[in-house]
Amino acid sequence: MGFSFTVLKKDSATKARLGRLTTGHGVVETPAFMPVGTLGSVKALTPRDLKEIGCGMILANTYHLYLRPGVEVIRDLGGLHRFMGWDGAILTDSGGYQVFSLGALRKITEEGVRFQSHLDGSSHLLTPEKVVEIQEDLGSDVAMVLDECVSHPASREYVQDSTQRTIRWAERSLRARKKSDQALFGIIQGGMCEDLRTECAREMIQLPFDGFAVGGLGVGEDEATLHSMGAFAAGLLPEGRPRYLMGVGRPQDLVFAVRSGYDLFDCVLPTRNARTGTLFTSTGKINIKRAEFSRDPRPVDESCSCYCCRHFSRAYLRHLYQAGEILAAHLHTIHNINFYHQLMEGLRAAIREDNLDQVYSESRIEDSEKGRDFSSES
Amino acid sequence: MGFSFTVLKKDSATKARLGRLTTGHGVVETPAFMPVGTLGSVKALTPRDLKEIGCGMILANTYHLYLRPGVEVIRDLGGLHRFMGWDGAILTDSGGYQVFSLGALRKITEEGVRFQSHLDGSSHLLTPEKVVEIQEDLGSDVAMVLDECVSHPASREYVQDSTQRTIRWAERSLRARKKSDQALFGIIQGGMCEDLRTECAREMIQLPFDGFAVGGLGVGEDEATLHSMGAFAAGLLPEGRPRYLMGVGRPQDLVFAVRSGYDLFDCVLPTRNARTGTLFTSTGKINIKRAEFSRDPRPVDESCSCYCCRHFSRAYLRHLYQAGEILAAHLHTIHNINFYHQLMEGLRAAIREDNLDQVYSESRIEDSEKGRDFSSES
Repeated sequence: MGFSFTVLKKDSATKARLGRLTTGHGVVETPAFMPVGTLGSVKALTPRDLKEIGCGMILANTYHLYLRPGVEVIRDLGGLHRFMGWDGAILTDSGGYQVFSLGALRKITEEGVRFQSHLDGSSHLLTPEKVVEIQEDLGSDVAMVLDECVSHPASREYVQDSTQRTIRWAERSLRARKKSDQALFGIIQGGMCEDLRTECAREMIQLPFDGFAVGGLGVGEDEATLHSMGAFAAGLLPEGRPRYLMGVGRPQDLVFAVRSGYDLFDCVLPTRNARTGTLFTSTGKINIKRAEFSRDPRPVDESCSCYCCRHFSRAYLRHLYQAGEILAAHLHTIHNINFYHQLMEGLRAAIREDNLDQVYSESRIEDSEKGRDFSSES
Repeated sequence: MGFSFTVLKKDSATKARLGRLTTGHGVVETPAFMPVGTLGSVKALTPRDLKEIGCGMILANTYHLYLRPGVEVIRDLGGLHRFMGWDGAILTDSGGYQVFSLGALRKITEEGVRFQSHLDGSSHLLTPEKVVEIQEDLGSDVAMVLDECVSHPASREYVQDSTQRTIRWAERSLRARKKSDQALFGIIQGGMCEDLRTECAREMIQLPFDGFAVGGLGVGEDEATLHSMGAFAAGLLPEGRPRYLMGVGRPQDLVFAVRSGYDLFDCVLPTRNARTGTLFTSTGKINIKRAEFSRDPRPVDESCSCYCCRHFSRAYLRHLYQAGEILAAHLHTIHNINFYHQLMEGLRAAIREDNLDQVYSESRIEDSEKGRDFSSES
């Protein structure tokens, strides 16, 4: 089974689209959110938890798996799907983002990026070719090219040089492909400069990629910039291929990005927040450790039908969290991932029924902004 | 539904019996192992995980729940079953064991035991009456009387005084009962002295308890003493009521104790070992962190049908454990609790088919003793 993408319907009032992504591991309806499975597990969840929620596609981090347990181990055990017991679709990132955010003493050359492992200080070289090979060994359904995710702020000159190198790396990535059953996505960089984004996209979309991602957002810029640059970059991408906004973000960012025409998303926010007791609800975020919940018999969200909300009270979850019980992380993660999944389902339904602009209006996005712990790290 | 116990079949070659325990929250076939749910969760497992394994009854710790979240919270939220989302049977201990093993500055008087919380140093008094009241508020199906679990070694004189006090406390516990739908078990103490055990049992079994437990074993004595005193004490108990060997233990101890005529067991060993990577298998224990498992494609136990063994390799579990992933604790605990459940199922089947002495012979018990990390603490 090969990879394909079909736009099923375009929203009339916004740039949103409903799509179908077909992979060798199932069909995914888009717009879709991919839970992050950094080290080969979506933290605290089993594959069947993800299936029960309805997730069809997850993200795994090449950088983390490359360092631990090592790519050869996963390859020799039959690839990442079999290794982690997940028969749904997997997108692997290139590892570039983690090299820049976690790796020490990184040095970028034309050849690639040399860095020291954050685990043991060992030295490694990732090249565009190596990154394709690693992801082919992992056997993910969608691979990403090596790029440089420039942090913000950065000088225009640096961004321009880096973006040109990212384009050259993208061309090398395509030449390095050996497997035909793995999709490869190019990544649009260009920092916060519209002309550099335009230039990068113009060159990148000439290349035979199966989809395109927008990277380098959610790296420290303010929300207005994130949203304006996100919308601008989406407009540079071809209609017929999937558009992936990397590492973004909060529920309101997802609504904004879907309205802008993106199809795929990932973010550690729901899983990480779950482990620190921050839970998403239809009326805003709550932190379960607050004393007000100590005798609260209600579920986290009365309109939620996840396993956690069907069976447990806020009082019980607060107790588990305060006592340091592992079960708290498990139940909270089920809820938060379900919340994100339901949000995406709602967005898809609204596009299908052509009422996205009414149901997920700009003003409603503003309303839902409770708390600001934006995070796009993985 | 009231509490009742029926001996269905007695083994011809040993003292083992097959029984049926009926509670207000389901029927439990005995001999049965109760996973320990210290703080209102069997660590790292959901109620549905326990149900899937087949567990019908768990133990919860009165001491821990009394201190956190507090008995009033649980009572006001509808009792422990509803609080933790568990509709199976629950046995609560008296808290006595934890007062003696965890509480600081404990002081025993005829009235009860005063101690300082291991959490915040606050001072508390547990009396036999208070302990009955707490467990009635928790709403467990089986409550235990307050006793003193004497550590080993102890002077004969101390054990004798303590045992007499435990008997007086047992009488007070019966008088304090207000609920008729909660079973109450007496506890036989007497240290390692056969005559004190005999004396304690003689007085205790005159009292109208619904069942009897043997306490004060697994407290530092050697295995020969544990087994000989365990067997001796079982012989002092009436046929028609359930016999519970508290806090014991390793798989080989359970086999021994079933052969000696016990019906109920609890121990933190399978759950605690799971979290440190020690997994039970049909051919002995393994520690998943060992390098030899780093590329091992086999399940933990090829003869096991638990969710963990059906889907994941040793290599994957080792990776999760080494990476500190929460999922390791979850999957390991599913496996270890399933192992204990399967062991008990095998023992019950052997009694039913009258071949216990062949299938679970004394010599086989010896064979299975791999590793010695005996633990009866909760």
